[in-house]
Amino acid sequence: MTTTQVTLVQIDNYGPWTVTPEPRREMDLQTLQSRLFANVAEFFGHRDGYAFSTRFDNMIAVTNGVDGDAHATLQESIGNRYPVTVSIGTAVSDRPVEALEAANERLQREGSAQDESRTEVLAGEYLTRTTPSDVQIAHFDVVNATGKYTDQLNEFDTFTQIQQAYGSLMRHLRERHDALSFFVGGDNIVAICPDLAESTFGEAVEHVIADVDVQLQVGVGRGASAHEAGFAAKHALEDCRHAGTAVELSGAPAVSD
Amino acid sequence: MTTTQVTLVQIDNYGPWTVTPEPRREMDLQTLQSRLFANVAEFFGHRDGYAFSTRFDNMIAVTNGVDGDAHATLQESIGNRYPVTVSIGTAVSDRPVEALEAANERLQREGSAQDESRTEVLAGEYLTRTTPSDVQIAHFDVVNATGKYTDQLNEFDTFTQIQQAYGSLMRHLRERHDALSFFVGGDNIVAICPDLAESTFGEAVEHVIADVDVQLQVGVGRGASAHEAGFAAKHALEDCRHAGTAVELSGAPAVSD
Amino acid sequence: MTTTQVTLVQIDNYGPWTVTPEPRREMDLQTLQSRLFANVAEFFGHRDGYAFSTRFDNMIAVTNGVDGDAHATLQESIGNRYPVTVSIGTAVSDRPVEALEAANERLQREGSAQDESRTEVLAGEYLTRTTPSDVQIAHFDVVNATGKYTDQLNEFDTFTQIQQAYGSLMRHLRERHDALSFFVGGDNIVAICPDLAESTFGEAVEHVIADVDVQLQVGVGRGASAHEAGFAAKHALEDCRHAGTAVELSGAPAVSD
Amino acid sequence: MTTTQVTLVQIDNYGPWTVTPEPRREMDLQTLQSRLFANVAEFFGHRDGYAFSTRFDNMIAVTNGVDGDAHATLQESIGNRYPVTVSIGTAVSDRPVEALEAANERLQREGSAQDESRTEVLAGEYLTRTTPSDVQIAHFDVVNATGKYTDQLNEFDTFTQIQQAYGSLMRHLRERHDALSFFVGGDNIVAICPDLAESTFGEAVEHVIADVDVQLQVGVGRGASAHEAGFAAKHALEDCRHAGTAVELSGAPAVSD
Repeated sequence: MTTTQVTLVQIDNYGPWTVTPEPRREMDLQTLQSRLFANVAEFFGHRDGYAFSTRFDNMIAVTNGVDGDAHATLQESIGNRYPVTVSIGTAVSDRPVEALEAANERLQREGSAQDESRTEVLAGEYLTRTTPSDVQIAHFDVVNATGKYTDQLNEFDTFTQIQQAYGSLMRHLRERHDALSFFVGGDNIVAICPDLAESTFGEAVEHVIADVDVQLQVGVGRGASAHEAGFAAKHALEDCRHAGTAVELSGAPAVSD
Repeated sequence: MTTTQVTLVQIDNYGPWTVTPEPRREMDLQTLQSRLFANVAEFFGHRDGYAFSTRFDNMIAVTNGVDGDAHATLQESIGNRYPVTVSIGTAVSDRPVEALEAANERLQREGSAQDESRTEVLAGEYLTRTTPSDVQIAHFDVVNATGKYTDQLNEFDTFTQIQQAYGSLMRHLRERHDALSFFVGGDNIVAICPDLAESTFGEAVEHVIADVDVQLQVGVGRGASAHEAGFAAKHALEDCRHAGTAVELSGAPAVSD
Repeated sequence: MTTTQVTLVQIDNYGPWTVTPEPRREMDLQTLQSRLFANVAEFFGHRDGYAFSTRFDNMIAVTNGVDGDAHATLQESIGNRYPVTVSIGTAVSDRPVEALEAANERLQREGSAQDESRTEVLAGEYLTRTTPSDVQIAHFDVVNATGKYTDQLNEFDTFTQIQQAYGSLMRHLRERHDALSFFVGGDNIVAICPDLAESTFGEAVEHVIADVDVQLQVGVGRGASAHEAGFAAKHALEDCRHAGTAVELSGAPAVSD
Repeated sequence: MTTTQVTLVQIDNYGPWTVTPEPRREMDLQTLQSRLFANVAEFFGHRDGYAFSTRFDNMIAVTNGVDGDAHATLQESIGNRYPVTVSIGTAVSDRPVEALEAANERLQREGSAQDESRTEVLAGEYLTRTTPSDVQIAHFDVVNATGKYTDQLNEFDTFTQIQQAYGSLMRHLRERHDALSFFVGGDNIVAICPDLAESTFGEAVEHVIADVDVQLQVGVGRGASAHEAGFAAKHALEDCRHAGTAVELSGAPAVSD
C-alpha cells in the first residue's frame, strides 16, 4: 500500500497579473515562471520531495515527510522574493490522484484562483510518519531517443514524438491506474503511482507503442520519499539500459547517498 | 512574406552526464534545467527574441535581429556558469520549420548530441537586416480556463485538458502550415508562423474544438522581432477577451514600449 | 551562555579556475558567485540559519539546528548544478570566532584551498540539541542613512562612509568581543555575538562615532537559531527607530512566525 | 583621455519595504538582493559592461556602449520579475566619479530614495560612439592570498585583512585620483580609473603596504568597454603573477574573444 503526500502550489490571481496594466513581456514571464519553479524544485528537492512544473502557474509536488512549517516557510519566502504570491494545499492518500484532489479542494473551497482576495491560502494535512515504501515512482524514457530522434529529425519534430508518447502514457496511467505522470525534460517521464504490479508497467509500455509507436523503457522504485523512490527507479532504469529490458523493478527500497 | 531566424540551443552530451558516475538527484536536474532556460529566455528576451523550453536539453528560440557575436557571448557565458556546455545552431528561412531544420543540421553535421568530442559548436547564419513584418506570431489561450477547469477539476486533469489542446494544435499547425507552437504555461500557446491568412487561425480553433473539445481564442501579430510580433499578438488576444471573438489580428506592427 | 554552530563553505580551487585556460569574463564570475551565494543563503535560511557572502569564494554561515545530512545535501546539490564544487566545515563553540576557527581547521587540515586534489571535503560536528537562547545577534544600521548620505552624496561616497563604519565596527567587535560582523547591504550590519552585555553594544556605537563619525543604532536578540535571534534583533531595531534610542534589546527570545 | 559612462541602479523605497508590515526574513532579503545583482551583472555583462554590487540596494555599473533602450528594458524586466522596482540614472564624463555624481543627481533631483511616489525614474545621457581606449580599468589582487591568509587564518580574519586593503585602496584612489574601486570577491579589487599614469598604480600599491601591510599587485588595461578594458587588465595581472612584478600595463587595447 502506498501513502503519498501531494502538494499543489498555485500562483494567486496570476492570469490577470500578466496583462495588468497591459500585457507583460513574454520572456519576463518565462523567466519569472522558471525561476519560481526552480526555487520550488530546490526547496522540496532538498527535503527529498519531487516538484513538477506542470503548467508553471500551478505546480504539483510529492512531499512525503515535509511538514506544515516547511510549507509555510516556502510560501513566505516566495511572497518576499517575487511580485506574485502563492497558495498551497496539501493532502495525503493511498492514491496520488486522490491526494491531489483533496489538496486542490482545500484551495478551491477558499475561492477562485483568480479571486483577488483569495491570496496565500495555506491549508493541508501532513504525514506525521513515513515508512520505507510509502512512495512508488516509475521513471520512463525513450529507447535510443538520441539515435532515433535527436540526431535525425529537427528538434520540433523530435519534441512532437516525445510529447505524443507522454500524452499517451499520462492518459493511460491516469485513467486506468490513478497515477500522475510528468514530463521532466529530454525523453524522461516520471510517474507517481499507487501500489501497482510489475505487469502494469509492461502493459503501459505496450500501450504507448500501439498508440503512438514510441518505445519506452521504465525503472520502478519505492521509498519513504519521492527522492528515495525516484532514485531507486533511476537505478532500475539504468538496469534496463544495460540489459536491454523494458521494465526493471528496484530490488529493495533504495538508500540514497 | 515572413523571414524567421531560428536558434537551437542544445546541451552537449547531457543524457550521459545526468547518470555519471551514477544518476544525479532529479530535483538538482530540474533546478539546473529551469535556471538554464531562464537564462536563455532572459538573454534572448532582452534582445527582443523569444525562447521556448521545449525539452529543456534542447531549446528553440526565435532570434531575428540577434547577431553571431551575441550567440557566442551566450555560449561562453553558459560554459562559465554551468557544469554543462551548449552547442548553438542558427538559420533563417521564410518558413519557421525550415529555419529550425537548417539550424539543427548545422549541429547534426558536426556529430551526435551525445558525442563527447562534439562540444560548443557555434554555427549559423544571421539576418543582417530586419523589416517590420518579418515575424508572425499567434498567441492562443483557452476561453475561460479558470472557470471551466482550474476552479473545477484537480490540477492534473486540468493540465491534461490543456495538454491535449496543445497537442492537437501543435500537430495541426505543424503538418498543415509549417508553424512551430509552444506551450508557455497556464493555458497559453505561442505559435511561430509563416505568412498565414486570418482564416487559417479560425480553422485551427475549429480543429481543436472538433478534435479534443477545448475552445481556444487567438490574437495574431506581426513585427520585426519575436517580441514585437508577440506583443501585438498579446494585445490582439486582449481584444478577443473583451469582444468575445475567437480570432483577432493586430492592425499594424506593434511598437513595444 | 551562547552556543553557536558555524559553517564555512569554500569553493574548491576557485582562483585557478577563474583564469584557466585564460581569464574568464568578470561578469560571468560575478553572476556565478552571487547565484551561488543566493542558493546557500536560501538553503540555510529555509532552515532558520543565516549565511553571509563574505568573500563569495568563502562564505560563513550560522547553522544551529542544521544537521550533517543537510550539509551533505547542499554540497551534492552545488556539485550537480555549478561548474565548481565546495568544501564545507562546521563546528560548535560558545564563542563564534572559535567555532569558525575550528570549522576552518577541518578544511585546512585536508590541504590548501588551492590544492587540486582536495575537493568536496565535508567535515563537521553538529549540535544535536538547540536551546532557546543559543544564538545572540545584533542588527545595526546607520541613523538616517538615506537623509544624510543616499540623498546627498554620490553613491560611491555614501558607500565609503558605510564601509568605514562597517570596518570600524567589525574590528572592534572582533578584537574586543570575538563577535563576527557582516555587512548585509544598504546600511545594515549583522553581528554574531557571544554572550555580551547591553553596555557592550552602547560602547560599540560610541566607538564607531569616535572612530569614523558615523552614528549607528542596534537591536539585539536571542533565539534558538540565527533566524530567531536575528528576527528578535530586527524587531528591537524597529524599536530604536521609533523611540530614537541607540540600543534596544529584545525582551524575550523571539518566536518566529 | 578616458570617457566613462556610469549607471546607478537604485531600488525604489527599499528600506521601508524590508520592514513592512514587519521585518522580512533576512535570508529572503539576501537571496533577493543577490539574485537582483546577478541579473544586473548578467545584463550589463552581456553588453560588455561591468556592474558592482556595492550596497546591493544601490549598484554602480560602467556601461559604455549600452544605450537608453537597453536601460529601459532592464528597468521594465526587473519590475516584471521582482517585488521591487528600480530607478536608473546614467551619465558620461572623463572622470568616473563625476559621471557617477551626475547620474546620481538625476535621481536625487526627482525625490528621495525613500519617497514612495518616486519610482522607476529613468534618466540619462548615453554615449553615442565609443572609441578603443575610453575605459581604463585596474584589476588588483593580493600577492599569495591563499598561502598567506586563506590557508593560515580563520576566514573572518582573512576577510578582515582583505577588507582593510580594500578600504585603504578605495579611499586612496578616490581621494587622489577620482577612481572608483570595488571589491569583487576573493582577493580581487577592480578600479574604474580616469586617465592615470603607470606610476600612479605603483604608488597605490605602496600606499596600501604602508597603510595596512597587505601587498597587492595590479594589471591595467584599456578598451572601448568595461569588458575590453577589464579583460586586458586581467591578462596584465596574469603577467604580474608570472613575472612577480607589482604593476603591469596591457600593451594594447585588448580584443576580447
